[in-house]
Amino acid sequence: MLSLAALSLRLGAAGCRGGRRSMATVISGNKTSKLVRERLKKEVEKMKSQFSGFRPGLVVLQVGDRDDSNLYISTKLKAAAEIGISANHVRLPNTATEDEVLQSIASVNQNPAVHGLIVQLPLDSVKPIDTERVTNAVAPDKDVDGLTCINAGKLSRGDLGDCLIPCTPNGCMELIRQTGVSVAGKHAVVIGRSKIVGAPMHDLLLWSHATVTTCHSKTPDLPAQVGRADILVVGAGKAEMVRGEWVKEGAVVIDCGINHIPDETKASGKRVVGDVHYASANQRAGYITPVPGGVGPMTVAMLMENTVQSAWRFLQKSQAGR
Amino acid sequence: MLSLAALSLRLGAAGCRGGRRSMATVISGNKTSKLVRERLKKEVEKMKSQFSGFRPGLVVLQVGDRDDSNLYISTKLKAAAEIGISANHVRLPNTATEDEVLQSIASVNQNPAVHGLIVQLPLDSVKPIDTERVTNAVAPDKDVDGLTCINAGKLSRGDLGDCLIPCTPNGCMELIRQTGVSVAGKHAVVIGRSKIVGAPMHDLLLWSHATVTTCHSKTPDLPAQVGRADILVVGAGKAEMVRGEWVKEGAVVIDCGINHIPDETKASGKRVVGDVHYASANQRAGYITPVPGGVGPMTVAMLMENTVQSAWRFLQKSQAGR
Repeated sequence: MLSLAALSLRLGAAGCRGGRRSMATVISGNKTSKLVRERLKKEVEKMKSQFSGFRPGLVVLQVGDRDDSNLYISTKLKAAAEIGISANHVRLPNTATEDEVLQSIASVNQNPAVHGLIVQLPLDSVKPIDTERVTNAVAPDKDVDGLTCINAGKLSRGDLGDCLIPCTPNGCMELIRQTGVSVAGKHAVVIGRSKIVGAPMHDLLLWSHATVTTCHSKTPDLPAQVGRADILVVGAGKAEMVRGEWVKEGAVVIDCGINHIPDETKASGKRVVGDVHYASANQRAGYITPVPGGVGPMTVAMLMENTVQSAWRFLQKSQAGR
Repeated sequence: MLSLAALSLRLGAAGCRGGRRSMATVISGNKTSKLVRERLKKEVEKMKSQFSGFRPGLVVLQVGDRDDSNLYISTKLKAAAEIGISANHVRLPNTATEDEVLQSIASVNQNPAVHGLIVQLPLDSVKPIDTERVTNAVAPDKDVDGLTCINAGKLSRGDLGDCLIPCTPNGCMELIRQTGVSVAGKHAVVIGRSKIVGAPMHDLLLWSHATVTTCHSKTPDLPAQVGRADILVVGAGKAEMVRGEWVKEGAVVIDCGINHIPDETKASGKRVVGDVHYASANQRAGYITPVPGGVGPMTVAMLMENTVQSAWRFLQKSQAGR
């Protein structure tokens, strides 16, 4: 069954094309993330009225003071506030030791008013800190970034009902759903195998019953692999690496890349592009995400989704425990 | 660099072929597992002399009394004894509750003389027991079956140095190594996505830098997918499902299947075959594992390997702690 959004995307596409296919339908992350955030806002209102003032709680833990981290965190806090999630920014100085970071995490883990905890990466400390150790100190049921080994293990082995899913690939799945294209039985190709994008994306597509191929820097025949993809998700971190000529006619193309390239026509002297060469891929794909305005806004929306989901689970448990 | 075993396999192949390729080189799991067990025996002797009588300890926990489980366990205990691993069989009655099983596991987890603990599956109890919960109760650093979420999470995200790897796919990798064919840059196809074979096999091939495609029951074009595999690993559980005509000329074919099919010429009325149609695949593959005598014997050898590895890590930690 098509969702209303998918139907409107499709009708729009047919209108543009006038019966002859020339351009892909653009999958808007701005619109889709707005829909998600509006839905979550209603859910949080429902929680509040049903459970006497209850609000989902989110903590963003930052070590140090990187400019890019500050920007990302402010976006997250703003989205949370709009939805009605109670979000707190816990900030440790860049002199914090690993033990101090672990103690902060333990204290948030124990706080029953917090349902989601993310540690903003990279850690900006002058002291040696083991990022893996810090990431895995987050309680799995509050791990709304989905980065602990336990959540990764569940996702990779198909126990999706019982885990928290990393936000970017979860957002990609939401965008794919918006197209109305079913994933089961399709051939999906993922470029990249990072912990936050490629590897969990493979898992989500596989357990949605696609046949999945994972490509990476050691793949010798990338154009041929890409050419077989009904669904292509790119998280390679290389500006405009995937050329339109490689793309299978009618494919769904999801671009997770955010790359800054020089552009003299811009006041800033640069512009943002994805990992896919948009202008040429747009000629062959059936559906494509733009950069910016595609996957980017979905990541924050899915962080909110995970936080609300985690709060629901907490409510269920506390109801069951009565 | 080719290992000696690989060299002898290759010379043997060339001899058979007389310059014209007709039959695949057989990758013997019987021979390779023997080599592994002999190496482990020497390692255990070294441990014993270096660390005043120290022996790796393994516990096999069984619930109930299934005939097939009894057979598998006796094979494991025998292999352990031959290598010098101190193995104990802990048996709970089929009336054991989940709590009793969890208590048994906790007690073995705490025993410093035990470095490996496996829970023989399936659990044979008249009481309701959550297998996932039981599997995940095993301490990750004693989880020599590699089935806990934590070990699966590490493996799936590429942290291979720090985890215990499931025995069957680990054995497949050892067999692939024996061929001398390098995995990096190759196209590998895995059929199946189970927790004990397909899913971890994907991870091992991916982090050995192959481009990996996972196929399963929802894959519509299996022959075409198989035809692109330089390395094919089959864990589908369907007798002779993969036909020789599908196989790419010269491919490495690893067959994890163990299926019993009727055979009137046998006294037992049946015989064991793999998931690959051996007679036809043998005509096209470069290397192929037989069934029986291929992957099967490797599984037990790799369980011993994991136990010895776990004991080494224990020794390293206790040395570091002095």
